[in-house]
Amino acid sequence: MEGNPLMARETLDPTDWPGFRDQAHRMLDDMLEYTRHLRERPVWQPIPLALRESFREPLPQRGHDLAQLHDRFMSDILPYAVGNAHPGFMGWVHGGGTPVGMLAEMLAAGLNANLGGRDQIPVEVERQVVRWMRELFGFPESAGGLFVTGTSMANFIALLIARTAFLGVAVRRSGLGGHPLIAYTSAGAHGCIAQAMELAGIGSDALRIIPMDKEFRMNTLLLEQAIIADREAGLTPFFIAATAGTVNVGAIDDLSAVADLAKRQGLWFHVDGAYGALAMLSPQLAPRLAGIQSADSIAFDFHKWGQVPYDAGFILVRDGALQYATFASPAAYLQRETRGLAAGSPWPCDFGPDLSRGFRALKAWFTIQLYGAEKLGESIAGSCDLARYMQKLILGEPKLELLAPVSLNIVCFRYRAQDADRVNNEIVMALHESGIAAPSTTTVNGCLAIRAALVNHRTGEGDIHALLRATLSFGDTITTAV
Amino acid sequence: MEGNPLMARETLDPTDWPGFRDQAHRMLDDMLEYTRHLRERPVWQPIPLALRESFREPLPQRGHDLAQLHDRFMSDILPYAVGNAHPGFMGWVHGGGTPVGMLAEMLAAGLNANLGGRDQIPVEVERQVVRWMRELFGFPESAGGLFVTGTSMANFIALLIARTAFLGVAVRRSGLGGHPLIAYTSAGAHGCIAQAMELAGIGSDALRIIPMDKEFRMNTLLLEQAIIADREAGLTPFFIAATAGTVNVGAIDDLSAVADLAKRQGLWFHVDGAYGALAMLSPQLAPRLAGIQSADSIAFDFHKWGQVPYDAGFILVRDGALQYATFASPAAYLQRETRGLAAGSPWPCDFGPDLSRGFRALKAWFTIQLYGAEKLGESIAGSCDLARYMQKLILGEPKLELLAPVSLNIVCFRYRAQDADRVNNEIVMALHESGIAAPSTTTVNGCLAIRAALVNHRTGEGDIHALLRATLSFGDTITTAV
Repeated sequence: MEGNPLMARETLDPTDWPGFRDQAHRMLDDMLEYTRHLRERPVWQPIPLALRESFREPLPQRGHDLAQLHDRFMSDILPYAVGNAHPGFMGWVHGGGTPVGMLAEMLAAGLNANLGGRDQIPVEVERQVVRWMRELFGFPESAGGLFVTGTSMANFIALLIARTAFLGVAVRRSGLGGHPLIAYTSAGAHGCIAQAMELAGIGSDALRIIPMDKEFRMNTLLLEQAIIADREAGLTPFFIAATAGTVNVGAIDDLSAVADLAKRQGLWFHVDGAYGALAMLSPQLAPRLAGIQSADSIAFDFHKWGQVPYDAGFILVRDGALQYATFASPAAYLQRETRGLAAGSPWPCDFGPDLSRGFRALKAWFTIQLYGAEKLGESIAGSCDLARYMQKLILGEPKLELLAPVSLNIVCFRYRAQDADRVNNEIVMALHESGIAAPSTTTVNGCLAIRAALVNHRTGEGDIHALLRATLSFGDTITTAV
Repeated sequence: MEGNPLMARETLDPTDWPGFRDQAHRMLDDMLEYTRHLRERPVWQPIPLALRESFREPLPQRGHDLAQLHDRFMSDILPYAVGNAHPGFMGWVHGGGTPVGMLAEMLAAGLNANLGGRDQIPVEVERQVVRWMRELFGFPESAGGLFVTGTSMANFIALLIARTAFLGVAVRRSGLGGHPLIAYTSAGAHGCIAQAMELAGIGSDALRIIPMDKEFRMNTLLLEQAIIADREAGLTPFFIAATAGTVNVGAIDDLSAVADLAKRQGLWFHVDGAYGALAMLSPQLAPRLAGIQSADSIAFDFHKWGQVPYDAGFILVRDGALQYATFASPAAYLQRETRGLAAGSPWPCDFGPDLSRGFRALKAWFTIQLYGAEKLGESIAGSCDLARYMQKLILGEPKLELLAPVSLNIVCFRYRAQDADRVNNEIVMALHESGIAAPSTTTVNGCLAIRAALVNHRTGEGDIHALLRATLSFGDTITTAV
């Protein structure tokens, strides 16, 4: 059977394993030291122009030395990241990550697992996390779940499954055909709900934006009126996206009321819980989410309050069979068997759009196993305690103004000034450039707000003091300079 | 400004850093040893029932010890993975990964970078890879590029941009409205092209499946006839998905002919190059892809022939402005600035559906920098040499039958037998269970084929001999037993 020998093929593995191992350990040490001494660094720092330009070299034809590449990572990349691992980072809604999450990602990458399918324990690990999430949210055994990049994708998947529920599985073949599907969400919802409508071909004009009440929750009275009006107009109301933790102020829609309404009106009840849903891990906060157990689908991210490294989004769907019906496709090259590698059907690729899928489940699994639900819940509750503490400080400081009541962990405030929008925008840019703290901005009731989203488990009281002190100081300087 | 002290908040970082560090180094060593000694393991092994069941414990309330969790990973997870890192793995189309890819993923996870946006060097790293891919495929400076999970998502993104090209950006708001868009692909195309039509709401009935010629390439004559017939029927032909490396046999459509035809007929010319597009890295193979430089969009995976760990898909779009127009949305909470963290617009989230995005670019960047384009190209060409070598062995063995000419790196063959479909299916399951080699199956011209996709850089001559020897041996046993 043997033929003529080919030239011996060179693999891409190291030729000098001991040398490679030493270098690998240096890289690990550098990351552990980085994490351990984060506080000694600025949260963020401006990128020198020459450094930015240095990333314009053409495609390298010949290889480089690993030690040199790593040195470049340490000097040119690591110090100029967003800084969300840093305790002073409060911008947007970013998790902080953990060293165990990093190690789990290393294991997953070393295994190089593709979680699209096949009979493998990594898929069982993902299934276990799915079961844990069913348990956490009170979903039935028949519920489906899947890791995705983030909640933008999870919301889109939920919308597609709801579409199947209303138009039948034939919609996959026939397309929407101009069917007048109408969806509903709050004015406080994240933009990815409208994006999901665009991606699905329904269009964002068919998304009704329901006003919020004073607590920034979707007004359920107006929601029901809108549904009835649309139905009377011959349209097909089908999907409500409620929010657990709005992006601007962290409000939680009245999920029980929305659940009742969705049932009464016969609509799909989806919860965008991108960062807020995992508050279910805290016995103290879980009652605030009452009603989420009745959802048809829940989207959230482990990489926010779950502190799992990016990215690790998740979708949980009450009717797993409908999820399967929305995505599964036969293909000769994906033939299933009862034995061997092609056993273990259904596969994760039958429940969502991705066929190539990394082992996101492993970093979530290690995180949940290492800390346990209790400690993760305490960490989440701790960031809400911290937000209330910050609210108290702001209310006690005449130069500052609170712009929205603190619901969970997001604090929107501003420095009082004439031309306050411009001044507060300047303050935030100055805060970033100072490296002291990194809040972001948003607009609340027409005012530009400094927005501190306390997500990172490393953020403590001292970081709040530093942020507020610097805000006052920059505010004073900017207003005096004018 | 200071208020009453809160209880000191406990972070999720290690309390015993030196102990954690020791454990982390053990984990790294274990993965390096695993990779170094892969050949001594079975490619795959069946999962004992009790082991599978052990992943059914409920959500842990209290935490576990990291060393114990890692032991469990080593004993219960790692040995029961798919095995695509192993040189004997030839199933489906899976890359093998590299140790440097693992280290880069560790760095990315330690940094916990979210590549959605913000002014950070990690985004510059992604932009550099985008520039390299423009250079590789001869795309203009104005082309857009983006990392995604895999080609399933990349194909979907391409379809959405083509939709914008034909219906205008207003389609985002108005939806498809029953517009009769028609797309075209070959009978050899991957199922994710049809899935993209489903996701987009156009429906897979609007995807014309064009027959293949004898070399398994899309028949461009029939393609043009279909376009003309659809246009005459009042429909709107808009999108052609050609394939560079078909999933079943590795055929490459005549990309130059499709390019000309798309130009003549005014359609969007997309290339699904999931695994084949990176053959451009090999000067020997690149001429086979002639015409790809004229594509409007190209989708491919770095985690296949690029050997980057899962997942690392990519989309390249000639008209970057149109890509931006398809995805960018204003949002108060994503306000852009000229200074500070919120500078550096446009952001990656403006070019695709993901807002939370891991740092996939880093593992691709390290891989390309460490090996250089030449060596990666040689590795790709090497797997094609190996496929031709395997073809020669099969043609020289009377008990085996080649089912399709080898175009690139995929070899479809079978053991000659009565009831050949059943026998060859049995052979493949027996191969998997033996741990010797792991090909998959597919259907070629109505016959069940043993399909060896030679993607892994570690696969060599000896692995081919082992596969064929075992195929003959199992084939003899199975047919004798009957």
